Amino acid sequence: MGNERGYIIPIGGAEEKEGGSILERFAKLCGGSSARIAVIPTASQDPESGPRNERHFREMGVRKVRVLPLESRQDCQDEKWVRKIEDADGVYMTGGNQLRLSTTLGGTGVAEAMRRCNAAGLHVAGTSAGASFLSEHMIAYGDEGSTPRASLVTLAPGLGLSDRFIIDQHFRQRNRLGRLLAAISYNPRCLGLGVDEDTAAFIAPDDTFEVVGSGAVTVIDPSEMEYSSMDSAERDRPVSVINVRIHVLTEGGTYDISARRARVAPALTGKP
Amino acid sequence: MGNERGYIIPIGGAEEKEGGSILERFAKLCGGSSARIAVIPTASQDPESGPRNERHFREMGVRKVRVLPLESRQDCQDEKWVRKIEDADGVYMTGGNQLRLSTTLGGTGVAEAMRRCNAAGLHVAGTSAGASFLSEHMIAYGDEGSTPRASLVTLAPGLGLSDRFIIDQHFRQRNRLGRLLAAISYNPRCLGLGVDEDTAAFIAPDDTFEVVGSGAVTVIDPSEMEYSSMDSAERDRPVSVINVRIHVLTEGGTYDISARRARVAPALTGKP
Repeated sequence: MGNERGYIIPIGGAEEKEGGSILERFAKLCGGSSARIAVIPTASQDPESGPRNERHFREMGVRKVRVLPLESRQDCQDEKWVRKIEDADGVYMTGGNQLRLSTTLGGTGVAEAMRRCNAAGLHVAGTSAGASFLSEHMIAYGDEGSTPRASLVTLAPGLGLSDRFIIDQHFRQRNRLGRLLAAISYNPRCLGLGVDEDTAAFIAPDDTFEVVGSGAVTVIDPSEMEYSSMDSAERDRPVSVINVRIHVLTEGGTYDISARRARVAPALTGKP
Repeated sequence: MGNERGYIIPIGGAEEKEGGSILERFAKLCGGSSARIAVIPTASQDPESGPRNERHFREMGVRKVRVLPLESRQDCQDEKWVRKIEDADGVYMTGGNQLRLSTTLGGTGVAEAMRRCNAAGLHVAGTSAGASFLSEHMIAYGDEGSTPRASLVTLAPGLGLSDRFIIDQHFRQRNRLGRLLAAISYNPRCLGLGVDEDTAAFIAPDDTFEVVGSGAVTVIDPSEMEYSSMDSAERDRPVSVINVRIHVLTEGGTYDISARRARVAPALTGKP
């Protein structure tokens, strides 16, 4: 492992039902057939979740796939599993309940290894609940709706691979613009990334990401926000938010998180 | 400014009503009579809050005190106020509503200057709402009670000077153990620091802090937490939490956040 951070890859859920291009792209990034991929099924209550993902990766030709059976905080302190993270090229977290991830992994040896190794080159992907967990501020749960209200969203500390964005998933499918706007309105310091089903943001070490998949990634940029009434609005009343910039990016589109600059895919503009 | 982080100083509120030893200690840390102190009254709706604090510091002999009238996000983007932060030895944030701080300062030039300058030696203190705002994960609001429930606490991104602890204030006076335990139970990665009124934790650059004042600082250390039911508990039902370590530290007591080691004041043990 080196001095450069690995990729951070939030996926919006349901990526296996579609063509599988996202998981293939992830496997290729990790080294293709020689990649060592660790699957963390902790978010899911379904015992088939880990094995199913293992099969997917094996069908793509990845020989070294290992499901880590992390069910308790004690499991996550076990040196055996910490070493599996340290030896991996990529970690993939399944969907389920992101609070299962934060309460089981949070602060343990496995989570610290994921943070440390990602900073040194390990690629970390998560789908649905696994995507929410990636960043420092995690949407723990919330409701649907497109108008932001404080009561729409509950935040909690996540894995903490980056403090520059808050991720939401199943974005368009579950009408989550309101809750992501509410999350951003508490403190307009982080970007919001709303990731649709069968769609992923491949966030490179330089914090530029490319969209892969059949849906879109919605970027909520509050850099120029003039006002948020989150400090005075009642919890169940709509919140006023003035001057938020939004981009909707589809396959091949890129976004530079540092410069806050969006570009559509070259194929859409006809420019190289 | 140098390469060493400045102090981070959460104060539990009501420090002016008592002897004033906390503010004197802060003023001395910043350079005493030659200190340059910027007061940020944004959390408060009381127009007297800034001038009252300015008078306190002047009465202690600090000649260069400046109240920054940051009322809107536009004010917080003004280069004039950014420079006042860059030129200060210490920043003091008053009490009020921490969401006024996060919605007004969050992501602006003034907040970025506070983060950048604290990393280079600026001391940043906050009382009550100002204390809550200091860390990466901020308790936005919540209810009283000593049994943790998810509905007791709402988290939001704060100023972000450290991601190693979550701060609560007016701690014993408002019976906030339950809400701080709930905040920690979402993800047992951060320490909880519950700061009583007229009490402060002076968190040094090496992340060891000393308690100053007439009350106590309660440390909630979840390093060995075996279980949290936050992922499955209903929002209004009590949450199970197994194996959390707690320390209650009074004046002169110290705590090493990295080593997670508490020491009582030498005066209490009779040992040097």
